[in-house]
Amino acid sequence: MMKINAQRLLEDFDALSHIGATVEGGVERTAFSQADLEARDWFRQRVEDAGLTFQQDGAGNLSALLTCGRPSAKTLLAGSHLDSVPGGGRYDGPLGVLAALECVRRIQEEKLELPVHVEAISFSDEEGTWLGMLGSRAFAGLLKPQDLTQVKGGSAAFGAALQAASLTADSLLAARRDPGRYAGFIEAHIEQGRRLEKAKLNVGVVTEIVGIRWQWLRFCGEAAHSGTQPMEERKDALWGAARFVDQIRTLTRSYAPGVVNCGQIEARPGAFNIVPSQVKLALEVRHGRPEVLDAMEADLFALARRVAGEFGLQLRVEPVQQVLPARMHRTVVNCIEQAASELGLSHTHLMSFAGHDTQSMSAVMPSAMFFVPCEGGISHNPLELAHEQDIVNAANVMLHALLSMARVMV
Amino acid sequence: MMKINAQRLLEDFDALSHIGATVEGGVERTAFSQADLEARDWFRQRVEDAGLTFQQDGAGNLSALLTCGRPSAKTLLAGSHLDSVPGGGRYDGPLGVLAALECVRRIQEEKLELPVHVEAISFSDEEGTWLGMLGSRAFAGLLKPQDLTQVKGGSAAFGAALQAASLTADSLLAARRDPGRYAGFIEAHIEQGRRLEKAKLNVGVVTEIVGIRWQWLRFCGEAAHSGTQPMEERKDALWGAARFVDQIRTLTRSYAPGVVNCGQIEARPGAFNIVPSQVKLALEVRHGRPEVLDAMEADLFALARRVAGEFGLQLRVEPVQQVLPARMHRTVVNCIEQAASELGLSHTHLMSFAGHDTQSMSAVMPSAMFFVPCEGGISHNPLELAHEQDIVNAANVMLHALLSMARVMV
Repeated sequence: MMKINAQRLLEDFDALSHIGATVEGGVERTAFSQADLEARDWFRQRVEDAGLTFQQDGAGNLSALLTCGRPSAKTLLAGSHLDSVPGGGRYDGPLGVLAALECVRRIQEEKLELPVHVEAISFSDEEGTWLGMLGSRAFAGLLKPQDLTQVKGGSAAFGAALQAASLTADSLLAARRDPGRYAGFIEAHIEQGRRLEKAKLNVGVVTEIVGIRWQWLRFCGEAAHSGTQPMEERKDALWGAARFVDQIRTLTRSYAPGVVNCGQIEARPGAFNIVPSQVKLALEVRHGRPEVLDAMEADLFALARRVAGEFGLQLRVEPVQQVLPARMHRTVVNCIEQAASELGLSHTHLMSFAGHDTQSMSAVMPSAMFFVPCEGGISHNPLELAHEQDIVNAANVMLHALLSMARVMV
Repeated sequence: MMKINAQRLLEDFDALSHIGATVEGGVERTAFSQADLEARDWFRQRVEDAGLTFQQDGAGNLSALLTCGRPSAKTLLAGSHLDSVPGGGRYDGPLGVLAALECVRRIQEEKLELPVHVEAISFSDEEGTWLGMLGSRAFAGLLKPQDLTQVKGGSAAFGAALQAASLTADSLLAARRDPGRYAGFIEAHIEQGRRLEKAKLNVGVVTEIVGIRWQWLRFCGEAAHSGTQPMEERKDALWGAARFVDQIRTLTRSYAPGVVNCGQIEARPGAFNIVPSQVKLALEVRHGRPEVLDAMEADLFALARRVAGEFGLQLRVEPVQQVLPARMHRTVVNCIEQAASELGLSHTHLMSFAGHDTQSMSAVMPSAMFFVPCEGGISHNPLELAHEQDIVNAANVMLHALLSMARVMV
């Protein structure tokens, strides 16, 4: 059975880990930083060393391309990202890029005559130093001009960063590719959680990437002098918000693996000696299916209203932002499962609770992704660690999934 | 039975209510404002019209003095304050000053030969436009030079305000009087709560003025990605703070009429998609007895520690500030109760949950205060309302309490 070259892959990993290395043992390669540009040069060199075609598009996405004989053939795409968060780890992103590169190299070495081109890709700024999933959104045509006015570090710094990578706002917006040229997309990634590790499983095949809904809940009561207003006569907005937060876990249990977070809270007027008249609470709900997101939200709002009623409060709900959930393509999921089975690797279905470039790709082509374990679920952290066997597994699963996709999806 | 002149008292009230009157029907006479200075002039005129001796001390406290024949006699003191909060009402403060003035006038008219001087006083800035209970603290020698560096509106504005009232920082600090010259102090005030109204009682004799303790509670957990960190593995600091707030009411019930408030809350790092690692919660505890304050705090801290333990959190407690409780003098309390009984007025014991000038006075001389009802408990509000009969009752209780005090306390 065909396998990837484990030694070459691990040597690539080792070499890449030195670029932007931090004293804590992780890497810091925020998008378009000096370290990121250095990693891009390194990647280009590795692609050219392998005799593959290197490409950089208008969004700074980097590709290693292996063409088949037919110019009209579609392309199978595989990849992830080389950039990191500040103070990040070695594996979040690079795993998917280096595994894809290794797959393309092995297909070339074996002189397999596939009916498709194969492309290994590294997307720009997945981590959102400037704008989350910048490269994959641009690729999929999901990037809008107004998005570029809202980049995190400010437009001037962003412009300078783009220039350093030989890019412009115009090139970003023109980076959309014709999805008709692509047969499908696959991504490998570390889990960033402990579900695989705890279940002692090798592979987690992602079935959905979570949708995210952000709302402000406002509990409104009446301000009062905290000395002269007896407790039984108060309409304390914090009492409502506190009981709501305390009851979320019970309510949410039946929606597992859906998750809820309240990450911000403010009480007004905000003094030791004034009963709070208003509490503003950040509510985040995550689930992979829109109908379950709807049901979770409905239950949470009903809880908030009931609790508000118990304390004589009013409730206001203000939607802030949402990310649509992405369902993985059944055929790609099947190819991943089949590859894992053929390799004798244990696997399960998982929902992804973080966003990934696959979310952008799934909007325009058949796409799926899979996870391998990372130690302790630690991620976005210098201690982030994927064991060598899991890295090798990821590349082998990707290779055989690509070969299956080339058979059934073209 | 001797009574105060109700018509004169109510006319005084009416006249004073026009000074600093607001369109909402209340008054705004913040300390040393133009309206406050005008009210001070008006008071001086009323004192002189009555043939009493007017005095202003170095703290701007205004007095109407009726001396008895003996220069070595002690003085009985009664009063409150003429200043208001911004957008305040007509009764909080003036009730005690005008009742005291009316008492002194009646004692003079009746040519009662008391063994004491009698002094009606209006203390400066009880409401803390600059520094709460400024006048009574200066009188009692409780004002320290460093207090004057921490005034609310800033030192420059405070200096200008003092100048407008012909005062200086030095005169404030020199305004301490010899307590040995005083036999006792009595204050009448509106309740600023609904306990008397609900119980349909005429008079609330204050037994203690609350002590106040302010603490920051810090619940410390672990920040985490709200998507990839499963709910059952989180150490969410807000979960601890919320359960603590939700359980305060049950815990506090046995300490009624003691009260607890959480008026400020902050979660860090503070983002929709990060599990809070730290929550800072403002905890205020009020009770009239130090030993009960100790017990309440011990129970609250134990609750906070227990709840923190339930969620795997650490707890830190940081004291911020405290106001010592003031126990009212038993003899003055008896004189008030006896006066109410003689007048056929129903009465009860109450704890005061707000601070009053009596707190300062009680540090240096036998002191007590009493409440009359105010409609709906509304105060610090233009809608503040004490009914005429309750105003008259307050002055009559004060008169007969003063006469009792003159008998038993000299």
